[in-house]
This record gives sequence, C-alpha cells and structure tokens, in this order.
Amino acid sequence: MFFRFLGIILLTINVFEHSEINLKMQNFTFHNPTKLIFGKGTIGEIGPKLRGASFKKVFMIAGGGSIQKTGVYQQVVASLKRAGIEWSEAWGVRPNPVLSKVREMIQMAKVAGVDAILAVGGGSVIDSAKSVACGYFLNDVWAAYEKHEPVIRALPVYAILTLSATGTEMNGFAVITHEAEKKKWNIYGPALYPRVSIVDPDVQRNLPWSQTVNGTLDALAHIQEFYFMGGDSETTLALDESLCRSMIQVTDKLKRDPKDYGARANLAWAATLALNGISGAGQSSGDWATHGIEHALSAINPDIAHGAGLGVIFPAWITYCQNVNPAIFKRWSKNIWRSSTVAGGVRALKAKIKAWGSPTTLTELGICREQFPEIAANVIQYGMTGNLKKLSQRDIQKILMLAA
Amino acid sequence: MFFRFLGIILLTINVFEHSEINLKMQNFTFHNPTKLIFGKGTIGEIGPKLRGASFKKVFMIAGGGSIQKTGVYQQVVASLKRAGIEWSEAWGVRPNPVLSKVREMIQMAKVAGVDAILAVGGGSVIDSAKSVACGYFLNDVWAAYEKHEPVIRALPVYAILTLSATGTEMNGFAVITHEAEKKKWNIYGPALYPRVSIVDPDVQRNLPWSQTVNGTLDALAHIQEFYFMGGDSETTLALDESLCRSMIQVTDKLKRDPKDYGARANLAWAATLALNGISGAGQSSGDWATHGIEHALSAINPDIAHGAGLGVIFPAWITYCQNVNPAIFKRWSKNIWRSSTVAGGVRALKAKIKAWGSPTTLTELGICREQFPEIAANVIQYGMTGNLKKLSQRDIQKILMLAA
Repeated sequence: MFFRFLGIILLTINVFEHSEINLKMQNFTFHNPTKLIFGKGTIGEIGPKLRGASFKKVFMIAGGGSIQKTGVYQQVVASLKRAGIEWSEAWGVRPNPVLSKVREMIQMAKVAGVDAILAVGGGSVIDSAKSVACGYFLNDVWAAYEKHEPVIRALPVYAILTLSATGTEMNGFAVITHEAEKKKWNIYGPALYPRVSIVDPDVQRNLPWSQTVNGTLDALAHIQEFYFMGGDSETTLALDESLCRSMIQVTDKLKRDPKDYGARANLAWAATLALNGISGAGQSSGDWATHGIEHALSAINPDIAHGAGLGVIFPAWITYCQNVNPAIFKRWSKNIWRSSTVAGGVRALKAKIKAWGSPTTLTELGICREQFPEIAANVIQYGMTGNLKKLSQRDIQKILMLAA
Repeated sequence: MFFRFLGIILLTINVFEHSEINLKMQNFTFHNPTKLIFGKGTIGEIGPKLRGASFKKVFMIAGGGSIQKTGVYQQVVASLKRAGIEWSEAWGVRPNPVLSKVREMIQMAKVAGVDAILAVGGGSVIDSAKSVACGYFLNDVWAAYEKHEPVIRALPVYAILTLSATGTEMNGFAVITHEAEKKKWNIYGPALYPRVSIVDPDVQRNLPWSQTVNGTLDALAHIQEFYFMGGDSETTLALDESLCRSMIQVTDKLKRDPKDYGARANLAWAATLALNGISGAGQSSGDWATHGIEHALSAINPDIAHGAGLGVIFPAWITYCQNVNPAIFKRWSKNIWRSSTVAGGVRALKAKIKAWGSPTTLTELGICREQFPEIAANVIQYGMTGNLKKLSQRDIQKILMLAA
C-alpha cells in the first residue's frame, strides 16, 4: 500500500498480478535529473548553485538544531551570504515528520515569498521540504498524499544531507505522517527530485551510532525491497549484492572508527544508490510490504526509528515469504551471507543487526502482541500489501509473530 | 590525452599529479539528465516523446542500412508519422565515424531547418549526431574537438540505440576521427547528453557475434579505466566488479544463444552503466591510456573495431602497470577471475577474449612491429598519457610489444 506509487519511477510494465511471479527482467524508465555534489568540503557550493539558478530568496527548513553543533548551518549561512542569497528559516522538523508541521511551514513560506526551498538535514527534513515545495501550490497538501491531487508543480528543492539513509536526496519521493489519522504515507512526482543535493559525508562523523545503523538498515531495506522480486535481472541483482556487501563492510568499519571518512563516504554513496532508481532497474516496482508494516509501526508509535523497525521486520518477512521465490532467497543467503540455507542467511542478518546494537524483536521496540491486530489492520486498511506476495491481515499477524 | 576531459563529469578534485597515487575516495559530481527508456517494444515511444517536447521536425541520422533489415527504421518512422513529426534523413555513418561526414551532415541539417537530432544506430551514429548537434552552432565543429571552442549549445539529441557498447546513449561524450590528421578525439558537454534514449535490447538479437563481443569489450574497458585507479572507494569498486562479472556471464550466455532476451537486456543495461558516471564515482577521472592507445590504432587503421582493439591492449597495459597500484590489480584478479596472481588474471581475461573469438594480439589486428613507433608517437603527440601511470613513448612501445 505504501510506496504503491514507486512504480511510476521504475516501471513501465507491472506483471505481478494474481500472485503470479514473473522473474524476467522488466522494462523500465530511468530518469533522475538531480545533480548530486558529493564529498568533503562541498557544502559551500550551495550559495553559488542558487545564485547560478537566479534565485534571490530561499526558505530554509531544518530539524532540532544538530546542524548548529556540527557547523553545517554556519557553512550554509556563510555560503548564502557570500552569494547574496536571502533566506528565512523554519526549524523543528522531527524524525517521522508530521503533517501539522508541514502545513505550518507552507504558511510561513507563503508569507515569506520565496523562490526555492532549501532543506538542511536528514531524510525527515528533506521529505518535509518536498512536501512544503508542492504544498505551496495546493489547497491542501494531504490531498496529494491521499492521491486526490496529482503532484505536478513544486518550488525547486535544494538539499544539504546530514544523515545518509532514506535516499530522498536523489529521488522524487517524500513520506510524512498524518498524526491524527495514524497514516504514514508517501507522494511521488518528477517535480520533487531535488535540483541539487549536496552530500558531505564528513559532517556525519559525529552522528550517534544508532543513527548510523538506522541509516544502514534503511538503505539495506530499500535494496531488499527490489532484490527479492528478482529473477534474471543479473546486472541489477549483482549490483544490489555489491551495494549490500559494501554497506555491511563499511558499517562494520564505522563501528570500530566512526570518524573513518572513507567508510562514511562509501556508506553515503551506497545509501543514495539504494533508492535512486539504479537498485531496482528491471525489478518491477519492488515489494514494499516490509515498508508498509514498518510505516504502521511508526504511525502507531512515532518513537520507533524507521531503520530500526525495518531491521526487526525484514528478517521475519524473509522467513515468511521465502517459498514464493526460493531461488532468489537462496541466492541472497549465499551471496550476502555465505550461507547455504535461507534460515542461515536470516540468522546471519539478525546476528549482524544485533552486533550493531540494534533491536531484532518487536518486544525491544516496545510493541506487544496485543497490538498486532491493530498494526495489521492499519497496514491493510486499503487492501492487501506486497508485490512478491500479497499479504492479508492474517499474513501480517504471522509476520509480526515471527518478529515478536 | 583522449578522454582527458572526462574529468569534467566525474571529478571535482584531481589529485593524481607527479605520479603520486591517491587511493582515497575522491569528491565527485553526478548529474545525468538523460531519460533512458529501456526494454522490449519501446521504440514506438519516440514519436510521443518528441511531440511532448513540442518538436515539429527532426534530423534523423543513421548508418549503413542495418536498421532497415532489423525493422528498427520502420518502427521509428511509424512512430514519427503517428505523432505528426516531420523528419529528414542522413545515412551512411560508418564505424569509427569521420569528421568529413559530420561536416556534410551539419550542412544538411542547416538546410533542412530542424528542431532536434534523432540518432538511430550504434555508438558511431549517436556520436556523429552529437557532433552535428553542437556543430550546428559552431563555425567549425573540429574546433570543439581541438578544445579551441567550448561545447555550450547543441540541438537536443534523441537516440534509439541498436548496439550496446560505448555508453554514449547516457553520457555527454562524442568521439570522431579527423581522417586527414589521423586524430580520433573526443568532446564533452552537458548539452550533449541525449534528452531521451531508447534502448530496446531485443533489436540486438540478430547482431553479428563479433559486434556483440566488441560491445562487451568496450564496456568492460570503460569500467576498467576507472577501476584500476581504485583504493578505498569500496562501493564503486564492488559495483564495478559486479558489472564486469555480469557482463562476462551474459556474454557467455549470448555465445550459446544470441537470441536470449534476458542476456541481451542485462548486457545492454550494464554497458550503459559502464560509462554513465556510476562506474567511476569517487575514482578520480579514470586512467584512459588504453583508450588513448586504441584510438591511435584505429586512427591509423580505421578497419580496427574499437572493442577489439581494447581487448588486445588492455591485458598488456595491466601487465605493464600492475606494480603502480598492486592491491587493485590483485583484487581484480581475485574478484573477477578467481586468480591469486595478476598474471593469472591477465591469462584468464585473454583466454575469455579468445573463447569469444576476438583477437588477443596486434598481429591478428594486422598491426606489425614496424608500426609501433608511429603508433606510440601518435598517442603522445601532445604529451604523456594515462593517469594511473603517465606513459611516455617508450612505455607505450613496451606495452605494444607485450600485445604483439
């Protein structure tokens, strides 16, 4: 249900109907116009890039203030000043960003009268910025999330990424939560690709360890959502495996030395590639049931970090769905985890998540069995979810049991 | 020397100076605005795409007529007619495309008065189309190749690819040969990225086997030009290895069954990724000495297919340069060829090229030792070549000896 519109970016033909799996390489369209500026010391390029596009005033969106501690804010402001760009600021976007905050910022942006939106932060900040960018031209931004209004027009979005995880810096998606209705939903539109995204991995050197791990778990999940749909897309499957292995390897490195620039940079680039269209080319629209289940978890309990939730659900989903496409789950176990069985692959994945200090059970996330029916009902409220296997409410409850 | 401007696309910092190798992941900018439409039966989308962009008349550039035999031409024409797009045609672009033909087509395009260029063919056709597209606005297109004029403006380029090899369908490069001066040179410009490229792998099912292999060898060489500059760019190195292994695997499949759609599609997508910016991210600007040497070979003897030439030169270059960055050559031998030594890796590469029926010696290409000084002089006529190791005329002669 969630990410059901992901197909627009990656798919021309969706042959996954009536639970019949087509394992052939699918037609696709790849079009990603974002200019990604990557590397140490690149944040100062934001001013010149905005000036080069003839913008005079931007609306800066940020989170809780960590960008002041890391010096990112100071670098951005200095660059804007040097380039003669005016700006106004909106602070306070939280993880699992919410609709009420987006609505408030849309009003502020309208009052300020701006040419472009500048997001400075992690995925939540950038997704909020994209929502403001299109909401600026809509009567009600939530109507776009409900798919009652198409996302056609948006203010140009520029982004300075401070936490590699969601891939939003190089795609046309945004996810926000309608708190009152407990809906964590997404929008997609070509207008939502950032014009320019700047990724300086060096500013992530002082991240809390749990945020680094959540980023890795999120990016791994993005690849897995596509990978397990796989059959004969050898190029994409091999590329996905290489991204997974690299991310695991460099996350291990960061556990030993969080300030290892090379490891930060490789993790950041892999996380971008995990959801910029490359990792799913030819793989239909991906499965996305695990994301659907996790979105229900964090819609119900906003304290659950997205990556941590995915880390708990994915092993259970794999265990439950492995017989739908056995060859691909065996391939994953062998090529990522050097295990001859899927059970062995799942054990190795969970052991890795545990070694990284992240939860592997719903209990650790503070979710108890009594909540499973509510969560499952939330997931399938508009129909069954998942493309590899269409999951009913009962299927989801079983997956939650496996993750308990 | 050739591809010396490749850096513009992939590089912010080039630290390869004075033969000091920096093995750290480099800063880079990734910006690839081409819309790639990929898959079976997609050629008919060309008309609607041109109409959607409000073009009325296009200049179609093609090769020797193979597109009529494969039915690609008929599909294109039918789509243009349905969409109400007018066109005029220029035929006769040959492999190793030449300046005289480009100049002739620029005049034709000016007389016809067109909105856009439509290339229908392989890399030679698309590179000629790009040259016409920018030459349309220049006094002399060769001035751009000589770097006396920047490539700023170009007619929009649309491409229908019929032979996966050069990657030109998704990058801003073009290579042509000045016959009289025996210069096979390149240009780069953001304006040269095709607006839309359509890759239908199915139309490659009846290609002569040698063309399929030359495509694979060209794409493998593109990856290797970046890969051997590698150090700690784990994400890019692992991705490059996965692309190489996939291409080798699906080329083997095509040898058994040239009509295997899955293998064609995977080869086509890998060849695009080999030179669209992904394969070299963080790897400085690449080495490109092997391309430089090959370009000299085919500037001197235009009958040498680019891929075949690269297949002969690359093993010799690896053998000659392996001690400059020993870790990466060992890694390549182990991860691509399962060999513990570089000599073993080179032997395996040559055995594979031979098994595919392609030449592994200059003798087989019709080049004799007496020509080595002339070739080496051609390569370094404007200075030493190569970024991993700067090669002198003497170095190049030694490499040619190894390839004899």
